Amino acid sequence: MPRINEHYLKLKAGYLFPEIGRRVKAFAEANPSAKIIRLGIGDVTRPLSPAVLEAFHAAVSELGDEKTFMGYGPEQGYGFLTDVLIEKVYAPLGVRLKASEIFISDGSKCDTSNILDIFALENRVAIADPVYPVYNDTNVMIGRSGPPDEKGYYEGIIYLPCKEENGFLPRLPKERADIIYLCFPNNPTGMVATHAQLKEWVDYALANDSVIFFDAAYEAFISEPGYPRSIYEIEGAQKCAIEFRSFSKTAGFTGVRCAFTVVPEGVHAKTPEGQAVPLSQLWNRRQTTKFNGVSYPVQKAAAAVYTDEGWRQTMETIGYYMGNAKVIREGLAAAGFTVYGGVNAPYIWLKTPEGLSSWEFFDTLLKECNVVGTPGSGFGPSGEGFFRLSAFGSRDNVTEAVERIRKRF
Amino acid sequence: MPRINEHYLKLKAGYLFPEIGRRVKAFAEANPSAKIIRLGIGDVTRPLSPAVLEAFHAAVSELGDEKTFMGYGPEQGYGFLTDVLIEKVYAPLGVRLKASEIFISDGSKCDTSNILDIFALENRVAIADPVYPVYNDTNVMIGRSGPPDEKGYYEGIIYLPCKEENGFLPRLPKERADIIYLCFPNNPTGMVATHAQLKEWVDYALANDSVIFFDAAYEAFISEPGYPRSIYEIEGAQKCAIEFRSFSKTAGFTGVRCAFTVVPEGVHAKTPEGQAVPLSQLWNRRQTTKFNGVSYPVQKAAAAVYTDEGWRQTMETIGYYMGNAKVIREGLAAAGFTVYGGVNAPYIWLKTPEGLSSWEFFDTLLKECNVVGTPGSGFGPSGEGFFRLSAFGSRDNVTEAVERIRKRF
Repeated sequence: MPRINEHYLKLKAGYLFPEIGRRVKAFAEANPSAKIIRLGIGDVTRPLSPAVLEAFHAAVSELGDEKTFMGYGPEQGYGFLTDVLIEKVYAPLGVRLKASEIFISDGSKCDTSNILDIFALENRVAIADPVYPVYNDTNVMIGRSGPPDEKGYYEGIIYLPCKEENGFLPRLPKERADIIYLCFPNNPTGMVATHAQLKEWVDYALANDSVIFFDAAYEAFISEPGYPRSIYEIEGAQKCAIEFRSFSKTAGFTGVRCAFTVVPEGVHAKTPEGQAVPLSQLWNRRQTTKFNGVSYPVQKAAAAVYTDEGWRQTMETIGYYMGNAKVIREGLAAAGFTVYGGVNAPYIWLKTPEGLSSWEFFDTLLKECNVVGTPGSGFGPSGEGFFRLSAFGSRDNVTEAVERIRKRF
Repeated sequence: MPRINEHYLKLKAGYLFPEIGRRVKAFAEANPSAKIIRLGIGDVTRPLSPAVLEAFHAAVSELGDEKTFMGYGPEQGYGFLTDVLIEKVYAPLGVRLKASEIFISDGSKCDTSNILDIFALENRVAIADPVYPVYNDTNVMIGRSGPPDEKGYYEGIIYLPCKEENGFLPRLPKERADIIYLCFPNNPTGMVATHAQLKEWVDYALANDSVIFFDAAYEAFISEPGYPRSIYEIEGAQKCAIEFRSFSKTAGFTGVRCAFTVVPEGVHAKTPEGQAVPLSQLWNRRQTTKFNGVSYPVQKAAAAVYTDEGWRQTMETIGYYMGNAKVIREGLAAAGFTVYGGVNAPYIWLKTPEGLSSWEFFDTLLKECNVVGTPGSGFGPSGEGFFRLSAFGSRDNVTEAVERIRKRF
């Protein structure tokens, strides 16, 4: 019998969101009349914008005519989309990228996972805690760690605790890290890094020959001026950072599937003999061999996000969600909760009341308020005692959820 | 500086199809007036069927209305699609599958690559030669092999030569293999396995506790009766085989992106301690952690392939391509070529004339006939001296290509 990849068995439990799904399903089945409000998984609820829809339909129609039919596209994505990203996303930030440095994909979850393929196992990885669980779990699954300790920290991975006392911002690791995961605006804490804070990380990476994986999936939600939207706004980052971007939250594409990853030509890793190899070359090989590109109509729809009309509509929807965030943040603060985030990110990070653990608060909220959130401890041990609420619901639902929570606590 | 996955550097050259693309591009730039006919990469050219288009448009419209908007779907795919596959694809073959055994994805290239994630490196892998290059290259990239020898065989991989003298059908390996890749109808040779031939493999796998990866991407092109379309038509295969299926060639989805993989609950691999673990459980973990599901409108479009109207239209298109295959096969045979395939597969596998190597024939065909094909040696050393032509062009192009080749040879 073949041998399994036994590292999978080191994972403690199911992936966080399926676990939430199971609990909610069980509750809903036992309480069919409960009107459950879901602010748990960070899933959008507003429809696609009209400009995006129009481009989507037009591209589907092209596939119905032999004169305009499109088969396999470039594995790296179509030039019409990479060009838009260079011009509309990066140029306004003063960041210059080449088309060959941008790789379109079907999701940042895939990219932040698959990027590990091109690195050797012996690299030391540093991960913020709490954070999007995929970073940790995929490193465990690929075999980079030992078993977890009783707290949930896996042997061999460097964790960077983000707690109330440090403003939920990771500090530079004491041990040298080869690869560092950063996520700003942060999921789940909603924190965003300043230029100076990011510069510290870029300087660290340049001084230590590290590579930063910068997950900027939520950059469109930055509403205060002055914060960097891309790590490439920091000098030197094009020599040490890979950036992950997504249309999922920006443009409501969670069910449509489109994202992209930037691997600048200046970012290298080395062979066992010490020869530097551009990571863009390896990632290109990975993607051309193991991936077949993103659906053509989806890429057309994505490009429409950055038309004048598309962007205006996209910003309207983001404004709507950030209005929700304000309702949650201010409502819960008024009710006596300690709340963070929700200003430059669609997530509100709240301290659980009454000394409840994250999962206890989850169960209480589900049973007594019929509101679903995400336990902070699901994002890492330092998230214990915290809880994430997402601002992606409808305004009515969000208002109602806050009302129910205020009544109960 | 982090260390790269140095196994990538063992790969001899670029992935086959990008290399073809480069040569064709260079020729086209040097000869702008040449009317190039592309029968190289196996890419479809006929438009999506009306039934598929209608479902595709309808699903896009759903995303434009908050009442019908869909966000994240199940990572494993929507029930509406898995149910259709169970009922329309497998039940007519007498094969019973559960929804939890079917995993929808964005492509078989991804699935046949990513499936390696759940297996330990020390497994011995057997790969037909010649075959779809992804099987070999992904095993090299993941670190299962040593360097290649002068022929192109990588150390540690068991190759199963498929040559003229054995009817291009792989023979059982002499050494025990943990994992065996089979592809029928075969890419590139166009051969299809009989029930008895597949049974030999299933019996081998059951006797040796091996797992078969069965790539059935071309099953819809089987036009002669009596050949199995799924490995699960063979008794016992649900205990030893994983099957890969795709909408790419079946329904013209190369630019749309949808496929699925069947991992029956009865297929196991073992831990280092010898405990059997269902591979469906590991694959589910892999997909839920590293993948975020297929675009909702794409899944709706895929389901429409199996409506009565959709299937009739789909079969019409396949009939068109198989008509092309007949033109190529019979035209080249009349011109004195030795040709194989093209009856139950959209590929014609021809012997290169005049003692030319596969790449020499490629260059000759490109320069003198302005026809692009695929060098057999690109699919493995045993493909040397052979050449693949695809039947996916338009009838006019295919007819013209055959005419040009007949004139020259």
